[in-house]
Amino acid sequence: MRYKCSVSYDGSLFHGFQTQKGLRTVQQEIENVLLIIYKHKTPIYASGRTDAGVHSLGQVFHFDADIIMKEWQVKNALNSRLPRDIYINKVEIVNQDFHARFSAKKKTYMYIIDMGEYNPLRQKYCYYVKRKLDVEKMIVGSKYLIGEHDFKTFTKNHTLENTIRTIEKIDFNINLDTIEITFVGNGFLHNMVRIIVAMLIEVGRGKMNPIAIQEILEKKDRKYAPKIAPANGLYLISVEY
Amino acid sequence: MRYKCSVSYDGSLFHGFQTQKGLRTVQQEIENVLLIIYKHKTPIYASGRTDAGVHSLGQVFHFDADIIMKEWQVKNALNSRLPRDIYINKVEIVNQDFHARFSAKKKTYMYIIDMGEYNPLRQKYCYYVKRKLDVEKMIVGSKYLIGEHDFKTFTKNHTLENTIRTIEKIDFNINLDTIEITFVGNGFLHNMVRIIVAMLIEVGRGKMNPIAIQEILEKKDRKYAPKIAPANGLYLISVEY
Repeated sequence: MRYKCSVSYDGSLFHGFQTQKGLRTVQQEIENVLLIIYKHKTPIYASGRTDAGVHSLGQVFHFDADIIMKEWQVKNALNSRLPRDIYINKVEIVNQDFHARFSAKKKTYMYIIDMGEYNPLRQKYCYYVKRKLDVEKMIVGSKYLIGEHDFKTFTKNHTLENTIRTIEKIDFNINLDTIEITFVGNGFLHNMVRIIVAMLIEVGRGKMNPIAIQEILEKKDRKYAPKIAPANGLYLISVEY
Repeated sequence: MRYKCSVSYDGSLFHGFQTQKGLRTVQQEIENVLLIIYKHKTPIYASGRTDAGVHSLGQVFHFDADIIMKEWQVKNALNSRLPRDIYINKVEIVNQDFHARFSAKKKTYMYIIDMGEYNPLRQKYCYYVKRKLDVEKMIVGSKYLIGEHDFKTFTKNHTLENTIRTIEKIDFNINLDTIEITFVGNGFLHNMVRIIVAMLIEVGRGKMNPIAIQEILEKKDRKYAPKIAPANGLYLISVEY
């Protein structure tokens, strides 16, 4: 029996999603609970990693279990034992050919920038920039990224991965001093959203022309986009299949 | 020179406002920084304590300093050295007869209840109740608390303090699954808001009639209001002078 689960977590106190020896990770916390429920090691497979500090409202993972339980029973069994900074939103029984990573068609990320007065209650949940950004320019700059491109500029150098991805849309939602930037695409490279956001902020500060984004994209070299926005402003919103 | 400061903090990682030996408190963090700035112990006096886990968007304190600095200089000197979960919103030079506690005329607290699906990103910032509350009944019940009353029922037993206070208003702001209850009054006893909120929740759950609040108020004994809502839903919003 294969179960597909949607999970929210507050990334603040995790060293990212994926298991790392001796560190607190989301995967390890969930597998610890599955070990209690099923009495043997039950690995989970996620749609992808998230880095330390990155939050989730809809990360997806799957696992296989030999004991038959209803979906709500699995959800309750997990949530009643998980720490308070992880929550399983939904459990569904899926076919054996479903794979959280390989079957994913679309992912949505959101990045929150706050241009207002610093609020210590929000510091782990957005990125405080200390000046007003020109959002119109950021919107213009973001248009150059829409579509299928080789996003090699916007990931760690020396990746062996295929770096071609399609960004379907980048939406800006402005509310008082807060900018929420939503990215929808068929997949995102490691650090890609945070590197793009750092560059959009440079545009918003007037340090770079919007058109420069197109030029930098074509360079296919990280050295032209060296900055990276902090992890705590980033949210994995959903994964579609 | 007397300085009046407004301070926000995320209460999550503090053992409350007031200094306690060996524990991390807001007062201790601020006094640690004042010691660096002024080179000698500089005590601060707040409008009142807040308990462990309680947040602030506008706690007020004052302190005296012999070195003359401008208001913005004091603000920057503090904020550049304080940890990221404390932030000084405003610094004002005030007369020697100003006292953050004794001059306070009015305080505003807010309590956030969430009746929706659990969100691990909000768990430190609201109280999750697992069912829909009847907010209309809670509003009716809250009316019995408005005005000048002896609120002895709603604080720790055996207090020696004068327990007469005036609640000017209790407002309910409902937004999807969230209830924000705002309390404005000339002062609040220790735990008073959290005990009142716990009782309003009982009313909202249908376990108590709204009119019972009046009866319990008149008992002047904590044993009739034994519950207390969690600290993490509570915010000190402002203090007026």
